[in-house]
Formats: sequence, structure tokens, C-alpha cells
Amino acid sequence: MKKISLLGSTGSIGTQTLDVIRAHQNEFQLVSLSFGRNMELGLQQVHEFKPEVVSVLTKDMADKLKVELPANIKVYYGEEGLIEAAAFEKSDMLINAVMGSVGLKPTLAAIEAGKDIGIANKETLVTAGHIVTEEANKYGVKLIPVDSEHSAIYQCLHGDVEKEVRRLILTASGGSFRDKSLAELEGVTVKEALNHPNWNMGAKITIDSATMMNKGLEVIEARWLFDMDYEQIDVILHKESIIHSMVEYIDGSVLAHLGTPDMRVPIQYAMSYPKRLDLHGGEKLNLWEVGTLHFEDPDLERFRCLKLAFEAGKVGGTAPTVLNAANEVAVDAFLNGKIPFLGIDHFVEKALSSHSIIKAPSLNDIVMVDIETRRKVQTYLN
Amino acid sequence: MKKISLLGSTGSIGTQTLDVIRAHQNEFQLVSLSFGRNMELGLQQVHEFKPEVVSVLTKDMADKLKVELPANIKVYYGEEGLIEAAAFEKSDMLINAVMGSVGLKPTLAAIEAGKDIGIANKETLVTAGHIVTEEANKYGVKLIPVDSEHSAIYQCLHGDVEKEVRRLILTASGGSFRDKSLAELEGVTVKEALNHPNWNMGAKITIDSATMMNKGLEVIEARWLFDMDYEQIDVILHKESIIHSMVEYIDGSVLAHLGTPDMRVPIQYAMSYPKRLDLHGGEKLNLWEVGTLHFEDPDLERFRCLKLAFEAGKVGGTAPTVLNAANEVAVDAFLNGKIPFLGIDHFVEKALSSHSIIKAPSLNDIVMVDIETRRKVQTYLN
Repeated sequence: MKKISLLGSTGSIGTQTLDVIRAHQNEFQLVSLSFGRNMELGLQQVHEFKPEVVSVLTKDMADKLKVELPANIKVYYGEEGLIEAAAFEKSDMLINAVMGSVGLKPTLAAIEAGKDIGIANKETLVTAGHIVTEEANKYGVKLIPVDSEHSAIYQCLHGDVEKEVRRLILTASGGSFRDKSLAELEGVTVKEALNHPNWNMGAKITIDSATMMNKGLEVIEARWLFDMDYEQIDVILHKESIIHSMVEYIDGSVLAHLGTPDMRVPIQYAMSYPKRLDLHGGEKLNLWEVGTLHFEDPDLERFRCLKLAFEAGKVGGTAPTVLNAANEVAVDAFLNGKIPFLGIDHFVEKALSSHSIIKAPSLNDIVMVDIETRRKVQTYLN
Repeated sequence: MKKISLLGSTGSIGTQTLDVIRAHQNEFQLVSLSFGRNMELGLQQVHEFKPEVVSVLTKDMADKLKVELPANIKVYYGEEGLIEAAAFEKSDMLINAVMGSVGLKPTLAAIEAGKDIGIANKETLVTAGHIVTEEANKYGVKLIPVDSEHSAIYQCLHGDVEKEVRRLILTASGGSFRDKSLAELEGVTVKEALNHPNWNMGAKITIDSATMMNKGLEVIEARWLFDMDYEQIDVILHKESIIHSMVEYIDGSVLAHLGTPDMRVPIQYAMSYPKRLDLHGGEKLNLWEVGTLHFEDPDLERFRCLKLAFEAGKVGGTAPTVLNAANEVAVDAFLNGKIPFLGIDHFVEKALSSHSIIKAPSLNDIVMVDIETRRKVQTYLN
């Protein structure tokens, strides 16, 4: 029985993680969870899975929850609450599915407590890849990706990072606007941007998919997860999202992971690794039903966020933190109708070009640069 | 340094095996080889690679060779010669690239002598899979596929046959006539049949590719190599031959092996397993250059040889031996202009339907049924 902590239980990855636990009650047990604002769903999950530790966003919510729940369930809140839930002593593994840089400290706490980490929180590796991977090595814990692309690569590698790898090839759907030219992107609306062709995800990641910033962040994650140089990471447009990513070896062999788009596959694999379990109700991939798979080289002038991400990754230090923070603020501004779609890469670039890089930043440096960047981009917007 | 025995050194697989040895002289050494009629090329290979044991087809050839070669090279001939070369005491691994049922006894001799086997000889597993796999288990030797499809599956599995596999999916190019209807196949010529779109191979296998008997034989091989039921093996038409085959797991994940068509990749992998080596002069796969991959469900009424192979495999016993022997004679008759293209499956079916199956046949049974079938199909043709 693997005991699971889950941060971000009411989001898309969170609820699907609970689907996997529900389907395999002899394999997994939820021992702690956290959620943010969605009290109704969160409470329902606590009643169903009966974790011993629950963490919520605010003290008010925590107080309200304590009244509703039996006394043996410990209720925490805020950043400390996340850390309590993440590093809970009875847990074997943390699935970190919170969004944003708030996921970083709980991940490090869980690593120090010896838990394996299922990483669905991008910021963990994007902003602090050098710290997180060093700590994971030090404490001998596994970092197992939950993203479909990184899970694909992890599965191709069978968990080993080998010297025999020549290149990683991340596939990208190209998002909602993949068939539009740069000129056609001028007037696109939020509603159009949220209409992703293959995956049903949250708003932020759907926009990141349309700008391909999502793929850029994944490139940075891949650099850390698989200890690769940026020169060894390629991105290819593949609009059907059937091939989830690929590994090319020194003998020219390419191993790929394919499947119907279903996030439960990588979530479950992260939890069941190194074994595999049946996927209940999963759709079988028959390529003759799909018929055709398409591939294109992405145009980096068209997908400028991807170019910026490669550049920020190569520069290193605090550049990825700036990239990520500026992007979060800019995407939020776009979703709220304050800036046009093409404003996103504009503001990210502006934030990057005005930043003085700190090399090998500490956790504190990262937190400070994150806050500073958000503030700076906000001033651009006002 | 891995010491290699090579049977069938002057054929397509044989010469490419020598290419791999030539490119990796610190990894591999050729210690014995056999060839058939191509004395000129064979002699050249012996001078270059200086094996200690050489086997040729006939006593005459052997006598001639003894005069030409230094006395420390032992020269054998015929079936016994193949066995001497295959089981040569100094060898670590046999690459069996001879064509036809003559490859069977040398394989078994090598297994008994504890050599790992790189299998490029289809008959070894098609006609005697139950004996060969049992012997390999008994003597603890590895059977490593050299066929691109089986190597693809072997690589996806990383050498393990796991209980977590749901299905193997073999890809098939569909051969020279993949776009022709059954009616259009009536008048096709030998020249047209030999014009394979993706792979440059020998005549027999190119015809087997056009009838899809080749894929049928591969299905039977896969059944034995990976210990699968026929219900767990699917075939899919994929005309670009970029995906070489796939493995579907119980969680719906599909792992695939991709690459440009280059037989040196699977040959080298069989020899270097479990590690990988650089492939000198190998072409890099960039899927955006390929652009599109196509997939179709094969029509078993159109590709009747594939259907017959599945049926013979499921019946088991001596049925695959009959399938294979009848096919060899029929393909030879087609290549010599004696029967039309569609006569091939006709005669294979006729041979199968008139045969009384021997269950769990001995090696002798297999040899007898092989001879008997060839004789019988010859009488159909006269």
C-alpha cells in the first residue's frame, strides 16, 4: 500500500489523482491533502478519502473546516499547512499538483522528509531545478514527472537517465491557435484562446499552450529532470497529441510514448512506478482509427514564448524565474481582458531584458525575484 | 570484446553485420563465418576479418578455399560446417542470418553451446519456436531479434517480457502493392513485385512483404520471442515504415520504436545489447521532414497470406512449418514466372488444408514435414 499526499486536490490533476486512488484502493491510500478555494469539492473529497491531514488556503477556511470534520483529522492552512501536508510522516509519496511558485517549499520539505515526488507543479523545476535536483540526489528520492510529455520520456527511459541518449523530443499540439499566422493572432479573444483542441485543462495552462510558453517551461523542466543540455532538447509540433514525446539514442533509435490524451495515464504511472496498473475505463489507442499523424517544425518567430523560454533556460540563474513570473502575470492580464494575446510574449520579454541575472540563486533569491518580477510586470500594465 | 559467429555472411543481413563489426572493432570480433555460393565476396570477407572458422556450401568449395587460406583457418562445409561455425567454442554470440530451414540445427547447436543468439533466420522460430525457446531457457541464453519489428518491440520492453503487456502491434509497410486492390493484383509482374518502397532487401523477403506473408511469419516469431497469445498480436499498415513496431501496456500506454529504415540499427542493437553504440553514418530521424505518418487496418481478404499465417500459428504444431515451406516453394515459382502473384496464397492454402497436423513436433518431424511439403507443392506446380 503506497501512502499518498496530494497538494491541489480540487484542480484538474488533483481530481484525476483521486480517480486513480479510487480505482486502486488496494494499491494507494490518501493520507493528506490540500486544496485552495473550492471548499465544497474539497470537503466532499475529505469525507470520501478520510485523510489524516488537510490543508486549506486561509485560517478562516481552516476554522470552518475544523467544525465540520472529526477531531482526528488535523487541519492546517497557508504555506505552513502545505508543508505539513507535503511532509506528513505517514506519507510515502507527494503528488504536487498546486499551481504556481507556492509549490516549491512544500516540495523541498517533502524531499527532506524522504518522500518520492510526483511533479505536476512546473515552478518546482523551472525556477529551482538546480536546488530541487540536488536535494533529491542528497536524500535519495525519486522525482517522477506527472506531465504527459515528461512521463512519456520517463517511460521511454524506463526510469534510467542514460549516457546513451542523444536528444529528447518534446511534442507540442500547438494549442488553440496552431493554424493561425502571426498576423491572425492580433485580434484573438480569450474565448477562442481557451478552446484547446486536444486537452481539457485549466485556463492558465490552456493559454500557455496557445503561446507555447507551456512547452517552453517543459523544456526547462526536461533539462533538470533528465540532466540534459538545452542543445539536446527539441520541440516538434504534432497536432494530434498522440505521440506524447520521444527519446533519441546514439544509435539513431527513437523510442516514443503514444496514447489517447488521458492525464490519468501519467498520473497513475508516477504513482505506480516502477510497475504498471490497469487503467479503468481508459480508451485504447488504435492508430488506424486516428489514420494520420502530422509533424511540423515550430516557427520560433511565430511562437516567441518558446524562443524566450529556450533563451532564459540557457542563460539560467534567475532568468527562468523571471520568465515564469512575468508569464503568469501577463496571462492573467490577458484572461482579464487587459492586454491582447500578443502582449503576453511582449511583457515576458520586457521583464527578462530588464532583469539582472543572479547565478545559482538561493531559494530566497528565487522567491524575491519572483515577487519583484510580478510587481514589475504589474506596473507595466497599469 | 564480444566474439561473434556469423552464418550467412554474404547476404543483406550478413554484410550489414560485418559493417557493424568493422565500425566497432574495439567491441566486436568475428571468430567464425559461413557463406553459401558467393565465393568471391566470402573470400574477401575472410581476408578482411580473419575468422578462425569458415564454412561453405559444398566440399568442392571447401577444398578450393583450403588452398587459398592459411592453414590456421579451419574450413568446413554443408550442414555440419554450419554447426561448427555456429557453435565454435571461442564465440560468445551467433548471428544467424542464413535463409531457410537450414538455419535451425545450427541455432540449436549454438544454444546448447551457451551462445546468445541474434535471430535473423525466420524459420528458427516459425517452425520450431516451442523447441528453440525451451532450449534457450534450459541453457540460459538470450534470443535477441534482428528483425526491425521484433527489435523494436525488444527495445520497447528493454529486454524484459513483462506481465504488464496487453498487446504487441507490428507495423507493416504493405509492400510493393499496398495501394493495389485484389483485382489489380491479377496481372502484376515479378519486376513490379521486387520494387519495395522502403527497404532494399533480398528477392524472397521482398515478395513476402508484398503478400504480407513476411508479416505473418513475424507474427508467429513474435508469439515465441515474447511469449504472447495470438490474440495479443495485432498488425497495422503503416506505409512510411517509420514506426517499426509498438507495445501496448495494461495502462493504455503505447511504447513505439521509430527510426529511418536502416537494418544496421537492429543488427547492432542485438550485438551491443544491453548497451547501445554510436551508429556511424546513420541518418537522424526528424519527423518534421517526414511530415505525415499514415496508418490503416489491413484487409485480411486482401492480404490472405497474413490471414493464413495467423490461422497456422493458432493451430500450431507443424502448421507453421507447412505455411513456411509451401510459401518458399510458391514464391520461388512466382519469381521464376511459373505462377501468378495470387498463386502464392492459393498454393500455401492448398498445402495447409491437405496437411495432417502433428502437435508438439520433434525436430525430426519438422524436418520431415518441411521436405514433404516442398515436394507436395512442387507436384501442384508440375
